Amino acid sequence: MSASPSGPGTSRTRSWWGWGYTDAHPDDAECVALGALLPGTLPRPLPVPRVADLPIGRPGVTPPTALAHLVTTDPDVRAAHAMGKAYRDVIRALRGRPGRIPDLVARPTDDRDIADLLDWAGGRGVAVIPFGGGSSVVGGVEYRGDAHRAVLSLDLTSMDRVLEVDTVSRSARIQSGALGPVLEAQLRSHGLTLRHFPQSFEFSTLGGWLATRAGGHYATGRTHIDDFVQSLSVVTPAGPGTSWRLPASGAGPSPDRLFLGSEGVLGIITEAWMRLQERPRHKASASVAFADFQQALEAVRAIARCDLSPANCRLLDPGEALLSGASHDGSSVLVLGFESAASPVGGRLASALDLAHAHGGRGGTPAADGDAPGDTAVSAWRSAFLRMPYLRDGLARMGAVVETFETAATWDRVPALIDAVRTEVGSVASKATGHPATVNCRLTHVYPDGAAPYFTVAVAGRPDDEVRIWDDIKAAASDVLHRYRATITHHHAVGRDHRPGYDLQRPDPFALALRAAKDALDPHRILNPGVLID
Amino acid sequence: MSASPSGPGTSRTRSWWGWGYTDAHPDDAECVALGALLPGTLPRPLPVPRVADLPIGRPGVTPPTALAHLVTTDPDVRAAHAMGKAYRDVIRALRGRPGRIPDLVARPTDDRDIADLLDWAGGRGVAVIPFGGGSSVVGGVEYRGDAHRAVLSLDLTSMDRVLEVDTVSRSARIQSGALGPVLEAQLRSHGLTLRHFPQSFEFSTLGGWLATRAGGHYATGRTHIDDFVQSLSVVTPAGPGTSWRLPASGAGPSPDRLFLGSEGVLGIITEAWMRLQERPRHKASASVAFADFQQALEAVRAIARCDLSPANCRLLDPGEALLSGASHDGSSVLVLGFESAASPVGGRLASALDLAHAHGGRGGTPAADGDAPGDTAVSAWRSAFLRMPYLRDGLARMGAVVETFETAATWDRVPALIDAVRTEVGSVASKATGHPATVNCRLTHVYPDGAAPYFTVAVAGRPDDEVRIWDDIKAAASDVLHRYRATITHHHAVGRDHRPGYDLQRPDPFALALRAAKDALDPHRILNPGVLID
Repeated sequence: MSASPSGPGTSRTRSWWGWGYTDAHPDDAECVALGALLPGTLPRPLPVPRVADLPIGRPGVTPPTALAHLVTTDPDVRAAHAMGKAYRDVIRALRGRPGRIPDLVARPTDDRDIADLLDWAGGRGVAVIPFGGGSSVVGGVEYRGDAHRAVLSLDLTSMDRVLEVDTVSRSARIQSGALGPVLEAQLRSHGLTLRHFPQSFEFSTLGGWLATRAGGHYATGRTHIDDFVQSLSVVTPAGPGTSWRLPASGAGPSPDRLFLGSEGVLGIITEAWMRLQERPRHKASASVAFADFQQALEAVRAIARCDLSPANCRLLDPGEALLSGASHDGSSVLVLGFESAASPVGGRLASALDLAHAHGGRGGTPAADGDAPGDTAVSAWRSAFLRMPYLRDGLARMGAVVETFETAATWDRVPALIDAVRTEVGSVASKATGHPATVNCRLTHVYPDGAAPYFTVAVAGRPDDEVRIWDDIKAAASDVLHRYRATITHHHAVGRDHRPGYDLQRPDPFALALRAAKDALDPHRILNPGVLID
Repeated sequence: MSASPSGPGTSRTRSWWGWGYTDAHPDDAECVALGALLPGTLPRPLPVPRVADLPIGRPGVTPPTALAHLVTTDPDVRAAHAMGKAYRDVIRALRGRPGRIPDLVARPTDDRDIADLLDWAGGRGVAVIPFGGGSSVVGGVEYRGDAHRAVLSLDLTSMDRVLEVDTVSRSARIQSGALGPVLEAQLRSHGLTLRHFPQSFEFSTLGGWLATRAGGHYATGRTHIDDFVQSLSVVTPAGPGTSWRLPASGAGPSPDRLFLGSEGVLGIITEAWMRLQERPRHKASASVAFADFQQALEAVRAIARCDLSPANCRLLDPGEALLSGASHDGSSVLVLGFESAASPVGGRLASALDLAHAHGGRGGTPAADGDAPGDTAVSAWRSAFLRMPYLRDGLARMGAVVETFETAATWDRVPALIDAVRTEVGSVASKATGHPATVNCRLTHVYPDGAAPYFTVAVAGRPDDEVRIWDDIKAAASDVLHRYRATITHHHAVGRDHRPGYDLQRPDPFALALRAAKDALDPHRILNPGVLID
């Protein structure tokens, strides 16, 4: 019944319409409890949608015999590839109006398969939507519009192997369709790890991370997947190519950096040599409470400017801290974590705590150096982090509108940006619904020169009007980000939902270059139409 | 008389034909002493060339009145903009056959000037060669060929101001024509520094670093200038653009990364917001001797894999160590340096020394934490580093052929690569000249997954045949690099001299995309013709 792959060694079922595993979904009672947190939500949860109720038509195209073994038209599989996992996608499924169901789903097993599928699709005007774990929250894996004769979802998860490990250079060649747990399981026996743990880790692939410039585990320093790439292999409609495997190079503009973040519009990333880490042997963590959020921001800025390199340095505002159970007294909470394969990290944690205390932080006894989490606020936050998308879907079933978005800006504008988002987006959400809206904020990643705030907006919706309300909230958010010159996305990608904001942000010469590159590599314009560039 | 800009507060004269300042050039006696190191060189140095002896014709084009104030036709200025500062350039000047002298040299003062100059040149088929400090060692700033009616050298050094400093976000907006000392002098009063110190620091500009993806001060971690860029402003023939100033972003492929390394073929970088550092307050350094170069490589690999982040971690092979005075007994020498604005670095140096000793290193008493250099080998190396290009020119005057080139490869191939370069390039150099050749190697930058070896080849030439010999040596070097899939350049750039190697290295889809971008942004193909792509 599951259309999507499961983690290694698990027989758990992936949800076709909601986040993650079906057995982790909130049950009806939990949905009601969640709804009670938001005034105005429905009295009972919307029913869990069924594929059988969807208007799935016959495929508009038939693949040639030579490729038929790669392709399925199974309705369950097609439904599971119709959309990503944004709130907008979930509510459309709940309301029985999902995005366009792809005609075909193909599961290639090698580069040759992909080249053949692209050749076939190019000659017939069939749109090709690259699909990894399907966890896009920006409309990155669905087809919108009607300029193509049919839609093929190109599911890469059959290409999920670690093909080579080079322990001397601490790197591995990995196929792009490997989900996080799938690739980590294969690296574990070598004592190595990619250490890229986005919130979607279980449900997203290496190729998805690369194509969207995913942000990962590390809250400071090198966290975007970009920095861990030695080389990429791509298959484009104009032909394949592989960059040389290099620790660094100054030979022309980086060829890999053009495909990193290209979101499937220039070609299909099929494998990559990735830089790995040794598994950490030393860990220490602690959390610090702040009565004043502005002071907490200053503490984080001070920590980010030193060479301390915390792996975790997440600042939760009072609402976010309350929601995750990290505090119950209106404090903001800074969650700090350090790790190293080489040497103890207690000294670095102590230095970071000194800086936090100098800026008004309270508490934060460091845990003994080892694997144990530092304190209960840290563990509360960790559990809540992985549970959040499931809770969002529970709220959706209660008719709430939930939007999460993230950005990054230089420090000089971070405090005013956060205030403006709270005020303006909250106001739009309330006005659009007639209900009080909650806007929470955390910093997910911090840099010496700026920070990446992540916002969660939640408000009771108006029945069957959720998509329009969500679009209004998204537009209000984009407007504030544009005004503060804060990026439309730090790590969620552009997809289709962020296109208006992205078009405003992208410099004109780069738009010209990107369009020219697109025309050269995808002359029939079949690759992920509507994403990034037209 | 000087055609090129001087450093701040200095009246020293830049050489039009050789490296750096004329008063630092080796005199005739020193040239003879240098020649004595290489069997077969000339008995007397070639004379210092004079502009008056060059065949400088009348300009082939006249700028319009509106732009005349930006343009000069002075022969001294034109001669100083004819070539970069590769050995190939120096010997051509010494032999009286320099590259094509540009017809005009323009010194714009703002983006508008540049746009006007590009408009004018585009309409008339005039090639435009962007020119910063003119220190290219890869033929990056000269015109070769005859497809253009005339040649304009676009000298950006009149745009040399730090326009804004944001101490909150620790960053500054800097015009691209600022030479290293010019921009550092302006940052100093803010207690900040860009900390980008290539060997050419005094004679190269921010724009040159950005356009060539220069490698800098730090021997580990983030060293390429790419990583310090918040935003870029460019002027292209198709229009100007500025990327948003961001600490990080995941919005599509990085627009800046297309222009970083574009070597002037897509547009003119006019300014950048750069990430800065606080000036280091803690420093410590030491050097370690190794009887065995292979063991030294292993030591460096071990250090690079830990989180120690030395600012300096340069391994000199016995020849390089001898030449720089760092050792006299046939040892290889590892020069280690640590620095921090935040906290003492003695512990990190001690950990690195432990690893070095565990791999057979000897010596290396750490200096007290402070500004003093660790030991005499460290200071010897530092002085030699800045003096080396001057000595190269002294050898050139003795009729020697000297080539320096650098690369990077993953650790699994580094040892064999270095051996192959020594053997094969040395053999070609000897056969081409009939004289014994010296091939020395040092590692300039190291990474957890690989290293950047830098090679110096020196051999007595055959009178008036030096360019051909140099070309043979370059071709042999490129051949070995290609065979080992080592990049054609880690930080010297591609220019015209590395084009054959670069064309082999660049993946086909990226070549298509780059050509399409070039056509879109530079439709008249006036920008730095022959560099990167045709």
